[in-house]
Amino acid sequence: MTTTGELELRVLDRIDKARRRKAKITDERVTLAHGAGGKASQTLTDAVFLEAFRNPLLEPLSDQAVFGIGNARLAFSTDSYVVRPLFFPGGDIGDLAVNGTVNDLAMAGARPLYLSAGFILEEGFPLESLTRVVASMARAANAAGVQIVTGDTKVVERGKADGCYLNTAGIGVIEHPFALTADAVKPGDAVLISGPIGEHGVTVMLARGELDIDSDLCSDTAPLHGIVADLLTAVDGVRCLRDATRGGVATIVNEIARAADVAVVFDERAIPMRAEVRGAAELLGIDPLYLACEGRFVAFVEGAQADAALASLRAHPLGTGAAIIGRVVADPPGLVLLKTEFGGTRIVDVLIGDPLPRIC
Amino acid sequence: MTTTGELELRVLDRIDKARRRKAKITDERVTLAHGAGGKASQTLTDAVFLEAFRNPLLEPLSDQAVFGIGNARLAFSTDSYVVRPLFFPGGDIGDLAVNGTVNDLAMAGARPLYLSAGFILEEGFPLESLTRVVASMARAANAAGVQIVTGDTKVVERGKADGCYLNTAGIGVIEHPFALTADAVKPGDAVLISGPIGEHGVTVMLARGELDIDSDLCSDTAPLHGIVADLLTAVDGVRCLRDATRGGVATIVNEIARAADVAVVFDERAIPMRAEVRGAAELLGIDPLYLACEGRFVAFVEGAQADAALASLRAHPLGTGAAIIGRVVADPPGLVLLKTEFGGTRIVDVLIGDPLPRIC
Repeated sequence: MTTTGELELRVLDRIDKARRRKAKITDERVTLAHGAGGKASQTLTDAVFLEAFRNPLLEPLSDQAVFGIGNARLAFSTDSYVVRPLFFPGGDIGDLAVNGTVNDLAMAGARPLYLSAGFILEEGFPLESLTRVVASMARAANAAGVQIVTGDTKVVERGKADGCYLNTAGIGVIEHPFALTADAVKPGDAVLISGPIGEHGVTVMLARGELDIDSDLCSDTAPLHGIVADLLTAVDGVRCLRDATRGGVATIVNEIARAADVAVVFDERAIPMRAEVRGAAELLGIDPLYLACEGRFVAFVEGAQADAALASLRAHPLGTGAAIIGRVVADPPGLVLLKTEFGGTRIVDVLIGDPLPRIC
Repeated sequence: MTTTGELELRVLDRIDKARRRKAKITDERVTLAHGAGGKASQTLTDAVFLEAFRNPLLEPLSDQAVFGIGNARLAFSTDSYVVRPLFFPGGDIGDLAVNGTVNDLAMAGARPLYLSAGFILEEGFPLESLTRVVASMARAANAAGVQIVTGDTKVVERGKADGCYLNTAGIGVIEHPFALTADAVKPGDAVLISGPIGEHGVTVMLARGELDIDSDLCSDTAPLHGIVADLLTAVDGVRCLRDATRGGVATIVNEIARAADVAVVFDERAIPMRAEVRGAAELLGIDPLYLACEGRFVAFVEGAQADAALASLRAHPLGTGAAIIGRVVADPPGLVLLKTEFGGTRIVDVLIGDPLPRIC
């Protein structure tokens, strides 16, 4: 007779073995899932990009590379933006592209300094829309205290793009002594989130008009380096930070659990979420843990400093909705578990497929 | 009665006034010319990007920004690549994207260190093609001594891109004391080119199969930081370097003439060009001075050091075809003139329109 416990162990063993296999890509063609930030993206990154480019700075596969030049410790990051629609409540592709790269730098604890901007425009794109995007970038850069110092524009024929795609890369300087890396996370650490989840994902989805829902939801897009700097000043036990963009909280916490070889247990009741987000996620049939945020980050902090970290986050205007949402334990290594509102426990895997393409 | 001389002066005066007007964009929609690197690109950059982002690092509108962090002097640059076809004799979008950003850094005299890579893929793009592009990037990075340390992949629906678009940004360190800027160029300087012009532009054009020409031409895509480092070691009178990409030699030299408020006089007979390039350009009805190179640069050097600079260029494998192609004079400021093979002189303006869209 097989007990439930034994069955669970076997399942975990199978998951573990599958994960340790060398990444191999079996698809013959690129699918939307390869850009969704979840399992297919990870396989593509491991099997194609890491395999070809392998070097010690790339290998951690963080959202930014960290290196020294002269006496400066720098962070360097890039993201392309293909969000549809270009304009949505609370933001547009312009401030998203500035804040997104600012945040990738901020997650290394860097002070963002300089951004590049690379536009790929479709022939026929209205100049008025481009001017709006650019004005929004300028406002966001100004608000974040960064300068856009270099750029490039390409134009492709009508039908070979979708209005406007935008890449930003950024450089920041790291001025504190902490190394914020996924493998620093340890059993006993607390897991915090800086605010309610899923607002960006649901807002963009609703802006497409495919669901007939009226809502006053706005994207949470915001620059996070200020709240991060406050946190790093307030507590010295911050292990790792990650903004919860594509793939949502579930995916990024899975990545960290695997990198650190620990388990993370979420407390479902503790995860902050607006009622509109919960409702829309239910209608869309999407677990809110996979919804993208563009102004929220997850912090792994030494357990004893969890309350101090929470107080620091809540003291910042972008962190008033912060919460402690889980803890790090030793077993089962590499897995994320959710203690549900109803008292059960389920495994939370990385995002599979792409329920919400072109969210950023 | 109006003499020819008076007429010419009036024309020059009108050109001059037009140029000094505040950039204003009259188009309502983006056209292919806005991405061609010529006049429309300049207007877009001035009227939209510079107007919104204005800061002292962006203002020179060079191919890279130069700034200090800590005790290091750094260069930072970005370019997106939309070349069609993705694979062509002598290269592909992968090595083009690596060499292109390496060269933008090299033109500031920087030693390129780290690159980012941002992919925008079309759903359905063959994984085999992506793997080829990535392998080519890895080889080019290896050859140039740079590391690809951070990246991002987005996927858009079928019909919303054209296979694969690619952005690279790069960081380099400047280890010499020279400031290479357009406004350092002075009357008396010599103008050199590192090799024959137009091979990339014609190769990509022929690879589209729209002209029924057989040719063994290859793209000249190559990393230029090595030949630049040798030049900066050999002579201390280098004023300004610019690689002759979109818009060709004519456009970049015009930009420098305007920035430095000097005139440049080309000697048509001295401009190195393969017979196949000359022939294809004639068939296409394009002045070869507007054809893109991806492994050639123009150097402005103090006149007395022209021969030493030429010898340095020719001593490098990428500079065997180098030549002195012109000189800087005081008048008429901001203009580029060509002394033709037939003894006449004509004005060479920046590129107008886009005769060869998606060349890089």
